[in-house]
Amino acid sequence: MSGWLVIAGLGPGDPRLWTAEVAEALTEATDVVGYTPYVARVADRAGLTKHASDNRVEIERATHALRMASEGQRVVVVSSGDPGVFAMAAAVFEALEAGPDTFRDLEIKVLPGITAMLAASAAAGAILGHDFCAINLSDNLKPWEVIEKRLRLAVDADFACAFYNPRSKARPEGFGRALELLKALCEPERLVTFARAVATPEETLITLPLAEATPDMADMRTVVLLGSSRTRRIERPGRSPIVYTPRWVPV
Amino acid sequence: MSGWLVIAGLGPGDPRLWTAEVAEALTEATDVVGYTPYVARVADRAGLTKHASDNRVEIERATHALRMASEGQRVVVVSSGDPGVFAMAAAVFEALEAGPDTFRDLEIKVLPGITAMLAASAAAGAILGHDFCAINLSDNLKPWEVIEKRLRLAVDADFACAFYNPRSKARPEGFGRALELLKALCEPERLVTFARAVATPEETLITLPLAEATPDMADMRTVVLLGSSRTRRIERPGRSPIVYTPRWVPV
Repeated sequence: MSGWLVIAGLGPGDPRLWTAEVAEALTEATDVVGYTPYVARVADRAGLTKHASDNRVEIERATHALRMASEGQRVVVVSSGDPGVFAMAAAVFEALEAGPDTFRDLEIKVLPGITAMLAASAAAGAILGHDFCAINLSDNLKPWEVIEKRLRLAVDADFACAFYNPRSKARPEGFGRALELLKALCEPERLVTFARAVATPEETLITLPLAEATPDMADMRTVVLLGSSRTRRIERPGRSPIVYTPRWVPV
Repeated sequence: MSGWLVIAGLGPGDPRLWTAEVAEALTEATDVVGYTPYVARVADRAGLTKHASDNRVEIERATHALRMASEGQRVVVVSSGDPGVFAMAAAVFEALEAGPDTFRDLEIKVLPGITAMLAASAAAGAILGHDFCAINLSDNLKPWEVIEKRLRLAVDADFACAFYNPRSKARPEGFGRALELLKALCEPERLVTFARAVATPEETLITLPLAEATPDMADMRTVVLLGSSRTRRIERPGRSPIVYTPRWVPV
């Protein structure tokens, strides 16, 4: 039996945001591996074993998946969103590089998914409609100084910005510091959108001027989209506003 | 009859990268609007009228779609990739903002898709596995100086970078200038990946050190991914290498 490893993105929540190739890989798998709430999104069926684990054990989970695939299993590692954006693909390749040579013989594929910022931008309109960046605000794996430097440069470049992992129970302070820095760098009217639990039944979207944003508006299920200086809001009577960034920059 | 407008992403090519909600919207539409090769990806059926147009007429196309929806049609504007990333969503909202009030009464939804950089990063491994940015290299809608400034700041931030629209027949020179600038800013071993026609039968992926990159490696069907200084290549005997950016930055 020839094993393989697929690293698949389940999108932000709604199964209607899965791609057909991800759904297909899941029907062929013998094992699904991932963080507990993501594994729970995959339906049970005969012949499929689910291996759910806590977060913060990405490398152990990745090594486990690589080992099962080496032993002939057909393994799908699931991530929320896109597996290549602040998710499991990089962790699997770190484990592969550090592991035995047999890991390099494996058939491995990454199947992309709808990452949270694209779903959030679409739900609001088109906030990422021009040049933009994505920054992970967690300082678990990089020094805080790197985050601050990147925020300064991103604002200087006038990118729209998507901030992942803005705040967690283990890191309650960081997002407040990031917000203070952004308020010092941007005009007070700059638009910021807090997209929580996007593409789930609990979705909430709040857009407001940066000057009115407070740290408690974000939690670990929130992706924060900061507009560029060109991002605009279209008011619509009886409908939610549209927030979008035009495609052009004036001379 | 109550019309609506959906702006949908078809992903980079392979229909297996469509999401289920995009496929569903297309089955309910009366009209599909878009750039000729994207409209051609949607299957013909009774009751569906296809409106294909040239590129560079985005605002006219957007206005046409808004007008048909106002008249009660169920209209899907299709983009390649994600409609919110250098595609039709921002153009539709520009046209909506400039148009009559009736446009603001419309039911409008943006349905996200797999944008080219995510498919390309996945095909190579996980090049966008840490903080990254996306820059449109076309100077049709912004001054070239803005592009150069953003390239400098992106390299200073040590973002991995995705470059869209690197080169076209109408703009043969720009990408060479961008490449010269990047070579001056980055170490010569910096990895760069040219992903052409990703997720189509003509897909090619080439990863090489930046010092060896030449302008003719890109055309209008290419997305270029520049690694950060941390991006690595794992060689695999008998298999294509894996290119990925680790999740962490050393202190």
